[in-house]
Amino acid sequence: MLAQFFHELTIPTTGRGLHELTDPVARWLRQCPARDGLLTLHLRHTSASLLIQENADPDVRRDLDAFFQRLAPDGDPLYVHTLEGDDDMPAHVRTALTAVNLSLPVRDGRMALGTWQGLYLWEHRRQGQPRRLALHFIGE
Amino acid sequence: MLAQFFHELTIPTTGRGLHELTDPVARWLRQCPARDGLLTLHLRHTSASLLIQENADPDVRRDLDAFFQRLAPDGDPLYVHTLEGDDDMPAHVRTALTAVNLSLPVRDGRMALGTWQGLYLWEHRRQGQPRRLALHFIGE
Amino acid sequence: MLAQFFHELTIPTTGRGLHELTDPVARWLRQCPARDGLLTLHLRHTSASLLIQENADPDVRRDLDAFFQRLAPDGDPLYVHTLEGDDDMPAHVRTALTAVNLSLPVRDGRMALGTWQGLYLWEHRRQGQPRRLALHFIGE
Repeated sequence: MLAQFFHELTIPTTGRGLHELTDPVARWLRQCPARDGLLTLHLRHTSASLLIQENADPDVRRDLDAFFQRLAPDGDPLYVHTLEGDDDMPAHVRTALTAVNLSLPVRDGRMALGTWQGLYLWEHRRQGQPRRLALHFIGE
Repeated sequence: MLAQFFHELTIPTTGRGLHELTDPVARWLRQCPARDGLLTLHLRHTSASLLIQENADPDVRRDLDAFFQRLAPDGDPLYVHTLEGDDDMPAHVRTALTAVNLSLPVRDGRMALGTWQGLYLWEHRRQGQPRRLALHFIGE
Repeated sequence: MLAQFFHELTIPTTGRGLHELTDPVARWLRQCPARDGLLTLHLRHTSASLLIQENADPDVRRDLDAFFQRLAPDGDPLYVHTLEGDDDMPAHVRTALTAVNLSLPVRDGRMALGTWQGLYLWEHRRQGQPRRLALHFIGE
């Protein structure tokens, strides 16, 4: 019998970069009585993203952030919207280039992530802050 | 009791830039008898995107479009596919860098958008045109 | 009566570029007893993407890949993570700039793709390899 479950997590970030979410999300899934279904995550912000990426070598996360810093540098004179800081508009651009929501099949209580895939919250502002993540699971 | 609902909206755009979708999508959701569930939107085009971004300062939308125009400029000599206009291949690239579908939890009839999040159709062609959006809601 | 269906496809790629997935995914959908619902695809890798793009002129796919090769070139001295080859970190970047999962409404057994939309697996490594795709369909 299909049923659905809702939750919200608050993730404190410590500044720009990738913060792993795999464990807190997996913990919530384990508490849901359903085992098989579809998980959807939605990050309720416009200057941070959700990303699935390599969870083995931490240099991959360092290099991803370095690439985005070069592509959308802080203090770019292109921008008009600068009142909230010189890293604010770059953070919106980085968010637009990635995503704030994603959906994943779940089998036997586990997300269908590949061997090398981890789930990350990518903070794009230089200063850390609490980020709110809405979770939805429909399954049986 | 879970049920699902389908709809299609046609959105007329007026040229390149972000066109807000939050209200027309929210109106359709309010007409659905279910209150809690999962909403999925799919844009049936290859030269326009769906985006969740800041809905407060309109300069953010202006700056997002300015960034994408610099990143993937019209008339770029890199491209072979130019028959449909010098803004056509840049529009495909901008679509590939963003997304044409997204899924959002819905609670009590409202999308789980954050305070500053709005839902946008991003037209990437210079000329406006009608764009077709497929909607799906599963809930109870 | 809503029900859900799971599957996994292994897609052999032949090197960097877009490989069409529309037919194998449509074939699996036709085998599912449900006709209307929501399809979700998740690619279980960190150096290849899922993309919905134009299926008419093959030059579009050539130009998309050319743009990404210029944006995130192989052998970029920016990267620290280089042990797996000079195309490995660019492949992670290209994956971050696109997506590994997507959800689509399905009506009467057919994905709600637009006239010009095809579904692609985008291999970002120069060497082809088998890629695993998790599929989920909830419908009735």
